[in-house]
Amino acid sequence: MFMHNKRLQYTVRVSETNPALASLLLEQFGGPDGELAAAMRYFTQGLAEDDPGRKDMLLDIATEELSHLEVIGSIVAMLNKGAKSALTEASMEEAELYMSLNAGGNSHTQSILYGGGPSLTNSSGVPWTAAYVDSRGDPTCDLRSNIAAESRAKIIYERLINITDDPGVKDALGFLMTREVSHQKSFEKALYSIKDNFPAGKLPGLAPYASLYVNASQGEGDAVGPWNTGEQWERIDDIEGRLPLDGGDGQASVALPEQEMQDFAAMTERLKSDPNANPVTGADLGGGPGAGKLSDEDLGGASDMEDARSQAAAKRPFPSGEE
Amino acid sequence: MFMHNKRLQYTVRVSETNPALASLLLEQFGGPDGELAAAMRYFTQGLAEDDPGRKDMLLDIATEELSHLEVIGSIVAMLNKGAKSALTEASMEEAELYMSLNAGGNSHTQSILYGGGPSLTNSSGVPWTAAYVDSRGDPTCDLRSNIAAESRAKIIYERLINITDDPGVKDALGFLMTREVSHQKSFEKALYSIKDNFPAGKLPGLAPYASLYVNASQGEGDAVGPWNTGEQWERIDDIEGRLPLDGGDGQASVALPEQEMQDFAAMTERLKSDPNANPVTGADLGGGPGAGKLSDEDLGGASDMEDARSQAAAKRPFPSGEE
Amino acid sequence: MFMHNKRLQYTVRVSETNPALASLLLEQFGGPDGELAAAMRYFTQGLAEDDPGRKDMLLDIATEELSHLEVIGSIVAMLNKGAKSALTEASMEEAELYMSLNAGGNSHTQSILYGGGPSLTNSSGVPWTAAYVDSRGDPTCDLRSNIAAESRAKIIYERLINITDDPGVKDALGFLMTREVSHQKSFEKALYSIKDNFPAGKLPGLAPYASLYVNASQGEGDAVGPWNTGEQWERIDDIEGRLPLDGGDGQASVALPEQEMQDFAAMTERLKSDPNANPVTGADLGGGPGAGKLSDEDLGGASDMEDARSQAAAKRPFPSGEE
Amino acid sequence: MFMHNKRLQYTVRVSETNPALASLLLEQFGGPDGELAAAMRYFTQGLAEDDPGRKDMLLDIATEELSHLEVIGSIVAMLNKGAKSALTEASMEEAELYMSLNAGGNSHTQSILYGGGPSLTNSSGVPWTAAYVDSRGDPTCDLRSNIAAESRAKIIYERLINITDDPGVKDALGFLMTREVSHQKSFEKALYSIKDNFPAGKLPGLAPYASLYVNASQGEGDAVGPWNTGEQWERIDDIEGRLPLDGGDGQASVALPEQEMQDFAAMTERLKSDPNANPVTGADLGGGPGAGKLSDEDLGGASDMEDARSQAAAKRPFPSGEE
Amino acid sequence: MFMHNKRLQYTVRVSETNPALASLLLEQFGGPDGELAAAMRYFTQGLAEDDPGRKDMLLDIATEELSHLEVIGSIVAMLNKGAKSALTEASMEEAELYMSLNAGGNSHTQSILYGGGPSLTNSSGVPWTAAYVDSRGDPTCDLRSNIAAESRAKIIYERLINITDDPGVKDALGFLMTREVSHQKSFEKALYSIKDNFPAGKLPGLAPYASLYVNASQGEGDAVGPWNTGEQWERIDDIEGRLPLDGGDGQASVALPEQEMQDFAAMTERLKSDPNANPVTGADLGGGPGAGKLSDEDLGGASDMEDARSQAAAKRPFPSGEE
Amino acid sequence: MFMHNKRLQYTVRVSETNPALASLLLEQFGGPDGELAAAMRYFTQGLAEDDPGRKDMLLDIATEELSHLEVIGSIVAMLNKGAKSALTEASMEEAELYMSLNAGGNSHTQSILYGGGPSLTNSSGVPWTAAYVDSRGDPTCDLRSNIAAESRAKIIYERLINITDDPGVKDALGFLMTREVSHQKSFEKALYSIKDNFPAGKLPGLAPYASLYVNASQGEGDAVGPWNTGEQWERIDDIEGRLPLDGGDGQASVALPEQEMQDFAAMTERLKSDPNANPVTGADLGGGPGAGKLSDEDLGGASDMEDARSQAAAKRPFPSGEE
Repeated sequence: MFMHNKRLQYTVRVSETNPALASLLLEQFGGPDGELAAAMRYFTQGLAEDDPGRKDMLLDIATEELSHLEVIGSIVAMLNKGAKSALTEASMEEAELYMSLNAGGNSHTQSILYGGGPSLTNSSGVPWTAAYVDSRGDPTCDLRSNIAAESRAKIIYERLINITDDPGVKDALGFLMTREVSHQKSFEKALYSIKDNFPAGKLPGLAPYASLYVNASQGEGDAVGPWNTGEQWERIDDIEGRLPLDGGDGQASVALPEQEMQDFAAMTERLKSDPNANPVTGADLGGGPGAGKLSDEDLGGASDMEDARSQAAAKRPFPSGEE
Repeated sequence: MFMHNKRLQYTVRVSETNPALASLLLEQFGGPDGELAAAMRYFTQGLAEDDPGRKDMLLDIATEELSHLEVIGSIVAMLNKGAKSALTEASMEEAELYMSLNAGGNSHTQSILYGGGPSLTNSSGVPWTAAYVDSRGDPTCDLRSNIAAESRAKIIYERLINITDDPGVKDALGFLMTREVSHQKSFEKALYSIKDNFPAGKLPGLAPYASLYVNASQGEGDAVGPWNTGEQWERIDDIEGRLPLDGGDGQASVALPEQEMQDFAAMTERLKSDPNANPVTGADLGGGPGAGKLSDEDLGGASDMEDARSQAAAKRPFPSGEE
Repeated sequence: MFMHNKRLQYTVRVSETNPALASLLLEQFGGPDGELAAAMRYFTQGLAEDDPGRKDMLLDIATEELSHLEVIGSIVAMLNKGAKSALTEASMEEAELYMSLNAGGNSHTQSILYGGGPSLTNSSGVPWTAAYVDSRGDPTCDLRSNIAAESRAKIIYERLINITDDPGVKDALGFLMTREVSHQKSFEKALYSIKDNFPAGKLPGLAPYASLYVNASQGEGDAVGPWNTGEQWERIDDIEGRLPLDGGDGQASVALPEQEMQDFAAMTERLKSDPNANPVTGADLGGGPGAGKLSDEDLGGASDMEDARSQAAAKRPFPSGEE
Repeated sequence: MFMHNKRLQYTVRVSETNPALASLLLEQFGGPDGELAAAMRYFTQGLAEDDPGRKDMLLDIATEELSHLEVIGSIVAMLNKGAKSALTEASMEEAELYMSLNAGGNSHTQSILYGGGPSLTNSSGVPWTAAYVDSRGDPTCDLRSNIAAESRAKIIYERLINITDDPGVKDALGFLMTREVSHQKSFEKALYSIKDNFPAGKLPGLAPYASLYVNASQGEGDAVGPWNTGEQWERIDDIEGRLPLDGGDGQASVALPEQEMQDFAAMTERLKSDPNANPVTGADLGGGPGAGKLSDEDLGGASDMEDARSQAAAKRPFPSGEE
Repeated sequence: MFMHNKRLQYTVRVSETNPALASLLLEQFGGPDGELAAAMRYFTQGLAEDDPGRKDMLLDIATEELSHLEVIGSIVAMLNKGAKSALTEASMEEAELYMSLNAGGNSHTQSILYGGGPSLTNSSGVPWTAAYVDSRGDPTCDLRSNIAAESRAKIIYERLINITDDPGVKDALGFLMTREVSHQKSFEKALYSIKDNFPAGKLPGLAPYASLYVNASQGEGDAVGPWNTGEQWERIDDIEGRLPLDGGDGQASVALPEQEMQDFAAMTERLKSDPNANPVTGADLGGGPGAGKLSDEDLGGASDMEDARSQAAAKRPFPSGEE
Repeated sequence: MFMHNKRLQYTVRVSETNPALASLLLEQFGGPDGELAAAMRYFTQGLAEDDPGRKDMLLDIATEELSHLEVIGSIVAMLNKGAKSALTEASMEEAELYMSLNAGGNSHTQSILYGGGPSLTNSSGVPWTAAYVDSRGDPTCDLRSNIAAESRAKIIYERLINITDDPGVKDALGFLMTREVSHQKSFEKALYSIKDNFPAGKLPGLAPYASLYVNASQGEGDAVGPWNTGEQWERIDDIEGRLPLDGGDGQASVALPEQEMQDFAAMTERLKSDPNANPVTGADLGGGPGAGKLSDEDLGGASDMEDARSQAAAKRPFPSGEE
């Protein structure tokens, strides 16, 4: 059972009302890497976990993440308190209140719909969804997911710290960020405390395909590294020459019983396309003269875009992603 | 640019039509750990990646995952082909077709709405959402997310293999499962090819909180392990005694300017609750005699549930999750 | 801050493994009226609440709802434990495991995707969304929403109790159902402890429209009751004769500056429809003989449906919803 | 059957084009408390309702809410008409049109994607979802949900009125707001016209738990009020001492058949964690010197955040949410 | 199988970093008419298609759309590259970085959550969902959906071109827009290559209802055109006089077996409303004096809104949507 | 304004209670091609339409679709009425009620959560979302979308008719299906009443790319037809040889100012991968002996899957999708 003490795990001191900043911080309240996602990820795993050590750890950390949800939610509530009061009491002119909603981020919805309370949305106003929770009931998968999730939460906090200059908010964000580092370390220890944790599950994989690297993207920029080169790897460069990998015909097929074969034949006959037709189409009906085949002249009016092409060709900015 | 060869990467041989199995396999077509999620995770990372080696690897694997989307989608299409033909041609009695929709899984929606084509949903019919894609633009996070995602995809394929007895389907699933093992190895190599990959980002975390373990869940079942015990850890057991961790007052506060303070005062005054009232409520109005306070007698009728309690108390089954 | 004790608030004794029942119970774990929705509704309100009494109550009840989330999740985990073990270890034949997934409800996805853990979905597998949380930052609204939500949660538990014959599960569901009754009573008391709680907000409404009942649905079945008849109500039966209610022209209009007027004129001119045309259309192109105008003969083939009409007309079953 | 008259229920006179304001008003077109949500809530209830009086009322109000959807949608269309024309005709320079999209709210998406028409989204662009509709098929629940929904809709309109200074828009919003007050009164009358409306359903709840108040959140700020104190309430303050409430062992357990017990044993053995290990982990591999245990020195660079902590500690702003 | 060449199908030359523009362009990366939606629409159709010609065409175009996803995603990555670098390295003051996030559109979330990579969201940050993909497994429907989708994608590109003045971006958008025109022409040809493509499916429709036009919206603004007038149409103007169209009683009815009839009777009896009651309600309890019936005096304070009404009535702007 | 008459547009006569059939019919109540989607598509277009003829038509058909929503919802309510009564009154044994929930489709959630009322979900229980509504504010796009939507709705009704043998339900479905045919004809007429309706918008497209067919999917199965062959088409078969189409370098590039260039350099340096490393990875740590490189021997245990491969290779069923 959960219990609660109204003291926060970390003191929140906000210098001034700032609903636009609040709406950015929602990323860690109701966003995909936020504290609710963390708490629910570990809580659902903990309930189904049968190893006593891991179960305890998961419930410890789930409980702390709920407490962090409280900290970040309290920051948001403080940053919104002034705007909430002003809108509720309508103490300002309409135009002034209207302007205050357009200060940035998603703060307009926070004021109008959520009334200044912390909403379980991300910084774009997208409602939190359990699609963010990737618990799968296998600890070697789940712990890897937790490790990844903690590293993501860490980087989001770092980005928020980088754009915040309210010292009290920055301080609390620093605390929350650091706890993610600590949790990642716990999950790493737990993963490697399982003797045989790779690959996940019981089935080992089929030998011919377990160390194959398929060089599916080629051309300029092809590169080597330990992920595709070295003793353990067999690399396939001639993609088409090796289709399919199993040596079959590379087709998909199914055996159908007699009645379904007849239905299949009737259906395909009824819906077959005539490759030799050149039918008049809706597009032909719908265009002006020559709509079916846009002539150069028709397109001459696109001078605006043609200009764009010439200008673009004349400059060669950099750096490109590939250089 | 992408190109396509109509041969599959792996031959698909389905023994017989089976729409209910098809609907389970959708988990890896349009589910959270399915091939579209994998392809889009790596593709979005690849587009923004600036390291030539990682960019190439991400595009290689993204391209292969799209090809796996094609393989699993082709299996689904084959498993559905007979049912699709029968429903389209209406060659059976209504009652017979109706019964065929209730063979299990989510196959009814696959037939009625999607017409037997592979739909981008999971095995419950939930449409694929980009909320599954956790690319964050930092390679030390993204590679960890990829490692975790590959391990999840592996276990889902293993579960599907465990319930499939069509040899051709099982064979193709085995191939797909194995490729996830191989991809996980590539992402592991790529992660550890970044010299300083932990913790993510530039900020190191605040020293006092980076190796703290908060034993937030206590009572029977408390456990130790390398995730909370040992040289590197400081563990807090007295949770309330350490509230807040920063030594402040554990409150949330904000400084408001004069006008907002006045609005705040007016708003709270108007909406204050009276702790000494004992108001008549809607529940009081709405219940029968004594609705505001359910008497034992009122509840006497719940004999059904009372019986349940007695029976439950009489047996002590096991194993519990904790023992 | 939250703390946790590994004892449940209520003991869970499950008689036998039953994943199909588990998937129905998810309605109260990750469904719209489930315990996470309840906890998050009160928790988000509590964080933003400025009245000390209500804040305390909201955090009390939010904390208890989290503990109920733990109880219902534990029931689900127990009901799934056998199926989880069997699928993980693949100790049965494929066909047998496959059959076990089709026992009903949404249990196939629970096994394949979630691995037997309690998932934050409803009984159809729809992931929980914060769209369920209707906190709006005004206590007279929020308390009414809480009252309604508790009554909904109560009825869902009652329905689940009605279909469960495992005595231990039934017992725990009875406990959880009863707590919703208790919480509803608390919220009722809190609502009516606010002196002036109706209507919500500060603006009173415009007198001419505040007690008007618009009889917008007419014909057989028109009824009266205290919701539309009596001293306080003015009822409008002649809908069209009173359009618009403000006495204006009932049109929507906007004043546009000169340039926008010109753009508007150009746009509407370019896109105007010709009411006197009788253009050949895609449908005309696409049908067989007479597609543009389906003749009776063309439709003669629909004998199947015509039969249906005759049969339907021949019987007059009851009761209708209206009688 | 529905019929329509092209006159609006209320005249809409918009003074000038303002797409940013339009995007805020979408909250009541396609937002959770908007007119579509209202119409669909009552319409779905009305179709399934068997009481003639309530059925008629629900269809009356559903029909009127559809008419309000038309009024608010018409306001949005008018506010967008100028911007729509300008973007369609491209009569301005690109940079000018670009700037016009960034005037606030969510108007950029309204112009680019929805082409100036009223979109069924809220003010953040989140598409309307039927997850907003909480009809449950029990009138004592549904009417409470309707009462709550009307109070929420009222407060959203009030907030929109507070930020609007176009007199025609403000006038129409005032009308729409007032109608919500009136509808709430009708639903209240209908709820209390059901003799025994509390608690919902037939089962009365278990006597020992129906009037219990669990003081789950303690510490500074603990409060009393009629929701937890007084004759009807039994209050539990010693949470852990009363775990579990049923007097059992507070554990979750299930009885498994022999084969599942064996599978369970094999699974847990294979996946057990070793509490005595101190494994090298991925975090150990990945960090710079000492990554596994961040030293004070490593963290010395976080001077930026340390400064933040000092500054924050130096000031004690107010008011906090608790004072 | 897919293969990839790291050259783009079209060169991308971006003049300067502009994350706000990037966030608008996301409409065509992860929006409903964007390139992923296009690729997945055609790919899922292609996998299930049995006509060799259409299958080939669908895979051709799906593959090209994936390549366009790469082009538009690369533009977004380039536009974000500077902001990504600055935020990652935190080379600017916090306030400066904070300001840079509020430059417009949805760029704040793109920076904070997605780290500057192209995200699979629309321009409001709404994650892509497979609900956008309307493949139904019947080619005469699917090709019509494809034609419509291409026309929508074309118009979105045109709007983006109209607001972009970076010549390289404009040029690439022009290319992408043009390809949609070309694809629409292919799908038109394919649709009309099916001999009998209207109406979809095998059933022809019931003769009496296939050419009926129901004039359900009447009053000022009623219009005629080839869609409701002319030889092929029968138009119904007297809506109520023709209810129901089948000549029955226009009621919904069902035949219930004995036990269900009894349950039905018990349920409706228990939940019946009393039309003659005038119950005290929660609204009565909650209001100030006269809450149950708002008097004119109570509402006198709404002077602000009354003013709005007078002002609005005093002006008659235009054009209305109807004139 | 809307008005309503309680008579349905078409009489609904249901022969017997059948909640599983009801849950399939939901596809047309709250599914993507259902009546709400249709009504909202036309209604949102109608509100923003400036052409009087089209506006009237859109409101006519939107109003009729709402009336069809009522018809299909009434069928669902009738089919559920018996099950609703039984569950509400709990007149049967728990086990019997439990069994009744597993009769197929999604009826369990309809009973438990929605209480037998028609829910705005599809046949899998997925809540309706406005993402289904593709109104874009350009009539040449919107009318094409409407034409496609009507053809989809037609085919779904046909599939439902094919599996229904209740004559009254079949009859009403036949009516609803037929009305979609009629509506499609109206939208076709309206589209072609716009003189210049192809391509959508004002910009004509760039001449070199408007009639190009990119043969992006090659290999066995390559086909020709009027969609890629003939006078109007230029076809590209040598994909890689024509990369990029514009004759540039096929790279993505951006010009960055000095400070961003420095940040970019620092970021890429910090995060660069070392192509020559062969780092120990988490997978190496985690596997048993040889985990880093799975040996043939390690994989020998996968005999189950190897068997599958042999069996699959031994048979060559058909038809494949390509033959």
